[in-house]
Amino acid sequence: MKKIKAAIVGYGNIGKYVLEALIASPDFEVAGIVRRNPQDIPAELADYPVVDSIKKLEGVEVAILCTPTRSVEKAAKEILALGINTVDSFDIHGDICYLRSELDAVAKQYNSKAVISAGWDPGSDSVVRALLEAAAPKGITYTNFGPGMSMGHTVAVKAVPGVKAALSMTIPLGTSIHRRMVYIELAEGYQFEEVAAAIKNDPYFVHDETHVVLVDNVNDLLDMGHGVNLTRKGVAGKTQNQLFEFNMRINNPAVTAQILVSVARASMKQQPGAYTMIELPLIDMLYGERDELIRRLV
Amino acid sequence: MKKIKAAIVGYGNIGKYVLEALIASPDFEVAGIVRRNPQDIPAELADYPVVDSIKKLEGVEVAILCTPTRSVEKAAKEILALGINTVDSFDIHGDICYLRSELDAVAKQYNSKAVISAGWDPGSDSVVRALLEAAAPKGITYTNFGPGMSMGHTVAVKAVPGVKAALSMTIPLGTSIHRRMVYIELAEGYQFEEVAAAIKNDPYFVHDETHVVLVDNVNDLLDMGHGVNLTRKGVAGKTQNQLFEFNMRINNPAVTAQILVSVARASMKQQPGAYTMIELPLIDMLYGERDELIRRLV
Repeated sequence: MKKIKAAIVGYGNIGKYVLEALIASPDFEVAGIVRRNPQDIPAELADYPVVDSIKKLEGVEVAILCTPTRSVEKAAKEILALGINTVDSFDIHGDICYLRSELDAVAKQYNSKAVISAGWDPGSDSVVRALLEAAAPKGITYTNFGPGMSMGHTVAVKAVPGVKAALSMTIPLGTSIHRRMVYIELAEGYQFEEVAAAIKNDPYFVHDETHVVLVDNVNDLLDMGHGVNLTRKGVAGKTQNQLFEFNMRINNPAVTAQILVSVARASMKQQPGAYTMIELPLIDMLYGERDELIRRLV
Repeated sequence: MKKIKAAIVGYGNIGKYVLEALIASPDFEVAGIVRRNPQDIPAELADYPVVDSIKKLEGVEVAILCTPTRSVEKAAKEILALGINTVDSFDIHGDICYLRSELDAVAKQYNSKAVISAGWDPGSDSVVRALLEAAAPKGITYTNFGPGMSMGHTVAVKAVPGVKAALSMTIPLGTSIHRRMVYIELAEGYQFEEVAAAIKNDPYFVHDETHVVLVDNVNDLLDMGHGVNLTRKGVAGKTQNQLFEFNMRINNPAVTAQILVSVARASMKQQPGAYTMIELPLIDMLYGERDELIRRLV
């Protein structure tokens, strides 16, 4: 079997889990890892080329972008222009159409394919939301996140003066309303009450019920588990009150990484262009022979 | 806007709900209804052509098959050979690959498209099962049906001598194990204990926990609600214990009909051939402008 040659671009938290998911996938081969400092080679990378540019790797067919969301557009455009597919988990919901349109043009020009915003939200949750609208077009879908760590909110807290270390947990209260539980260590010379007030007034928190808790060691609280409760109550045809619910309790980077690998597989089967997960046939994301997958899953 | 011209083929329980779903869909137009007796025109069909052959309808683009599962293959082949798309909710799991292969050949020959086995199971459940394998490729998925009426089991009970009327309810016990609650009216001259024993020994029931209950009037118990609880516990990459759950409480024929209409829409956007739902991009099933759908759902 000819294996798909994949490069991991960026080797932080997600990148490490992507490596594991690639090793666990029988149809993939790790072409190498691209990182800013190619001299930084942890033990698990000893068997792979580690380079500072994807051009230094041989025969890469798809690049799995594990860089920060803000770097995705630039990195993807450069790689797509080399005729190499890209997949990413770009997660700024308001900019997804923009990114898709930008990458679509480059991909079509260079005969490559991009799958964007592929993680769990955006990603697998998007697929569930689309499916539930196909089953009940009228109605309301609520996506409730957590309990789990919010990366974006944690970064926002860390930027507040007086915060030495922080963790913002998202707690679902239903109907897409969330509580923010913020755990902080205080920098010297700051008053807890003042810092807590500043956090609650931050645009990231001002509209949510927010509790700030002083702790000795934020690091002791860190856990990468996350969750989703997604509900839809809607109308099928003219029949009211169709009820749907999707629940998930996952390791956040592990599932993000696995979905990136699954859509990397799917990217090989598409026409040139850029796609979100709801634009791909699910079967293309799965390893195995088509008839066997249909027999087992349909 | 040019509307999609759809014909309803077969006007039983599902057909009635398909009519409602078509009327509720802004991009569809009802071309007419095909039924064995075109003189049988209930009030709600007064405004539509009712005919005994699809050839008597004008400009049909897609036929929504609401005939019994056993009639799907023949009906679909005839209609696909006219260059008209077909969609069905064929539900004999073991024969789906066969049907797909048969219809694929006809569809490719006559430049038409078929979407098969599109309901909730097979159908939307299949999509969820495929999605969960993309997120966690190793592990076990359990599909638990009910509580709700099983059409197949009810027909099987009715065939047992001494049964005047019957209803078989499927009760989920978890890990894909089901209890069968069978409600019957007894024909004259039969002993309840003997009939109950015959039901429990029927191949449809012999492997399940089955309870047979004598009632005065089966009709008073009929309810078209159904449910699913689908779970997966699996591995993403090398990370164990990823937990997923999908729940649904629905009107069985209403959701089946709505999904048929959604895949009828999707059929218009595919290349000639036959498809199951896991082979279609979900976005093609939805009404609306692509960027707007992506903005709202991804």
